[in-house]
Amino acid sequence: MHKIFTFLILILFPSGLFSQEPEIVLASVFNEALTDRTAYSQLEYLCKNAKGRVSGSPASYEAIKYTCKALKNSGADTVWLQKVMVPHWERGFEHCYISSSAFGKRDLSISTLGLSAGTSAEGIDSKVIEVQNFDELKSFGRKKIEGRIVFFNRPVDNSLINTFAGYGGAVNQRISGASEASRYGAAAVIVRSATQFLDDFPHTGTTHYADGVKKIPAVAVSTAGAELLSTWLKKDTSLIVHLITTCKNLPDTISYNVIGELHGYQKPDEYITVGGHLDSWDITEGAHDDAGGCVQAIEMIRIYKKLGIKPKRTIRAVMFMNEEISATGGKTYAEEAAKKGEKHYAALESDRGVMSPRGFGFDATETRLANLQSLSKYFLPFNIRDFDTGGGGSDIGPLKALGALQIGYIPDVQRYFSYHHSANDTFEQVNIRELQMGSAAIASLIYLIDLFDY
Amino acid sequence: MHKIFTFLILILFPSGLFSQEPEIVLASVFNEALTDRTAYSQLEYLCKNAKGRVSGSPASYEAIKYTCKALKNSGADTVWLQKVMVPHWERGFEHCYISSSAFGKRDLSISTLGLSAGTSAEGIDSKVIEVQNFDELKSFGRKKIEGRIVFFNRPVDNSLINTFAGYGGAVNQRISGASEASRYGAAAVIVRSATQFLDDFPHTGTTHYADGVKKIPAVAVSTAGAELLSTWLKKDTSLIVHLITTCKNLPDTISYNVIGELHGYQKPDEYITVGGHLDSWDITEGAHDDAGGCVQAIEMIRIYKKLGIKPKRTIRAVMFMNEEISATGGKTYAEEAAKKGEKHYAALESDRGVMSPRGFGFDATETRLANLQSLSKYFLPFNIRDFDTGGGGSDIGPLKALGALQIGYIPDVQRYFSYHHSANDTFEQVNIRELQMGSAAIASLIYLIDLFDY
Repeated sequence: MHKIFTFLILILFPSGLFSQEPEIVLASVFNEALTDRTAYSQLEYLCKNAKGRVSGSPASYEAIKYTCKALKNSGADTVWLQKVMVPHWERGFEHCYISSSAFGKRDLSISTLGLSAGTSAEGIDSKVIEVQNFDELKSFGRKKIEGRIVFFNRPVDNSLINTFAGYGGAVNQRISGASEASRYGAAAVIVRSATQFLDDFPHTGTTHYADGVKKIPAVAVSTAGAELLSTWLKKDTSLIVHLITTCKNLPDTISYNVIGELHGYQKPDEYITVGGHLDSWDITEGAHDDAGGCVQAIEMIRIYKKLGIKPKRTIRAVMFMNEEISATGGKTYAEEAAKKGEKHYAALESDRGVMSPRGFGFDATETRLANLQSLSKYFLPFNIRDFDTGGGGSDIGPLKALGALQIGYIPDVQRYFSYHHSANDTFEQVNIRELQMGSAAIASLIYLIDLFDY
Repeated sequence: MHKIFTFLILILFPSGLFSQEPEIVLASVFNEALTDRTAYSQLEYLCKNAKGRVSGSPASYEAIKYTCKALKNSGADTVWLQKVMVPHWERGFEHCYISSSAFGKRDLSISTLGLSAGTSAEGIDSKVIEVQNFDELKSFGRKKIEGRIVFFNRPVDNSLINTFAGYGGAVNQRISGASEASRYGAAAVIVRSATQFLDDFPHTGTTHYADGVKKIPAVAVSTAGAELLSTWLKKDTSLIVHLITTCKNLPDTISYNVIGELHGYQKPDEYITVGGHLDSWDITEGAHDDAGGCVQAIEMIRIYKKLGIKPKRTIRAVMFMNEEISATGGKTYAEEAAKKGEKHYAALESDRGVMSPRGFGFDATETRLANLQSLSKYFLPFNIRDFDTGGGGSDIGPLKALGALQIGYIPDVQRYFSYHHSANDTFEQVNIRELQMGSAAIASLIYLIDLFDY
């Protein structure tokens, strides 16, 4: 009898922090995160042994294998791979220089945009026309554009406090510049990197061609390079830019989302998803974007297991594949969830870099938002104060249709775009405490949402 | 008549943002700070052309000359030097290695503590005893300590959210370890660097000897070095450490505070001081500690002049000398203010690093604190939310006796102690936007305090 009673106790009241006050649980979560180096080591591995994890690359498969193992080591009850079809784009040789009869020759730091068409092996030699936006492009028209390289040079508005808003105001040149310039017969486009920072790192990203337009080559130039090119152009409108990029679009290929879960003890068929994306651009270690988000999700599992926190719902850590190019990882995850009739209660993405936590953004009804904002009191001891609207992430977006609350993890984003999509996004640019504080914040919020049914 | 009227208007209502709503002024201040690179260039100069600005060093005089010029360029009405007597301590050759019959030889990354006594030219070869704190030291007593090198190895408590609290809990080993160990006849002390981070940078700082104790050599060892030494010691208690440091204490010498001011238009005889300290440790560029604080003070002047903000009180930007060793800059500044009968209304110090602003700490009466906290609403658009007690800084501390409100500028401090007092505190570790956001926050707060008479 005594044995049966003990057995029942263990089933009903599992060990660890199960029935503690939330304040005590959160203190333990932060304590555990801040005194453990597992996630930081995982970040180092992804950055140094699986850098350039673009979808379909050998590094991306190494990252899949590694995070699978890391999730198992973290104590996840189940770990599996979910098949995802991904585009397979490969950078080739790329080189760009200005040749000016007035100023001489100068290399530009460029990075071909993802999905861009390549040049011929000889490259392009062409005059350049600088524009600030699509209206100006239109006003120049085919007469001035045809056969030229269009140089999109509208800078990010540095006066905006939210650096993502600044980025958002400039990035259409990168996304649609090639497509728009192609309508007027441009030979190629060079796009100023979408960053607040003046340096010599080109920041890549995808470009998209509208249906029916000729796919012309598109590259990002560093902000320092953009300033140089613009300055020279003002004094020598007939300067020539030589551009060569032998990138290739290969057939779509098979890749995987990596998923690890802790089974819920009360509502195992309801899911809370916490994720980052495992792919990065090929030119970067992708530390902030987004190895950090991935290891924070794994760390949540490790912390729950270590501290004996038993979630009511099933909690999943998901490493989404192919966020950078066409987000098929997130789409596939939601499609399969819909097919299986899974109930998705909430989803959080960490994909704004690994700086100190400021809070969370929620996409929720007014009532649910008020509940969520009431949780902010638990975060005051950790100086995490922002519980606002406007959350989400591109990988978890498709889960919204299944009813999942959308949550974005919000760190301090002032320096984020000095790293974003560039070779500057290295392991060394991540501070271990800023990573740990973020992991603790995420693990804490998910615990509270599950606990209070918010 | 018309000319006289215009003249009066110009006198009574100076140009620019003089009579605008505070919200508009603050938006302009942030806009100006975020779109100008002057302060960042000044920071680069101090880091690259005046690195190792320890009091009395050639670099410190270069920094004085440069910031004097920078203050004039910023538009300060008056710029002058204030004589300060400073200690003159010079690092010499330093080298430290472990020699173990079990493990072999290994260099340790060390940095002699400021004001430390040196060894002989041959150095010290001695057995080592590890202790965690002064109680343990006492329990070992003279019998076990005499002739040995005492190794203080208590780590910073990483679980503390406030990294300054963590630092505060460990730094007594550095400040008083040599003095305490000397009482029991120790030959020298090696102190684990007071930082949350596991790396190979030694973090220096002052050590103080109590009156009458023999001054024994004291060095900081990197946390990685401390871990190594501790691990080896556990298995080989008879290992020998060789320590040589030929540092010298020279006679006190003359240096200067650098002061620039904007004259108040209404209460020119009331002062608000905003400062950082110009000296750094000799082994570092001192970017975060505290060139950043200095250039933020200069930037406040530049912004006020550029935008036509006219303070009621006289606003001073002060580069204090010798904060790191014996804070004579701050003491002298307050002494001279007292002598002249100056009325000091408020003082702010920026000396916690150049990370994103979180807010301010105030040392104020309850009523004044409530007024100050009411200002936080103006900072919400900039996501600066912390208006709490607990402000100040060691250079402005002496002004408290003159009635000056004490304000500390509070950035996000998670990564601060990875830089503090080490060769890792470089220009490259400062993000321009985090610097700019801080400058804007400081200039805005001072503007509001002066405007509302808070």
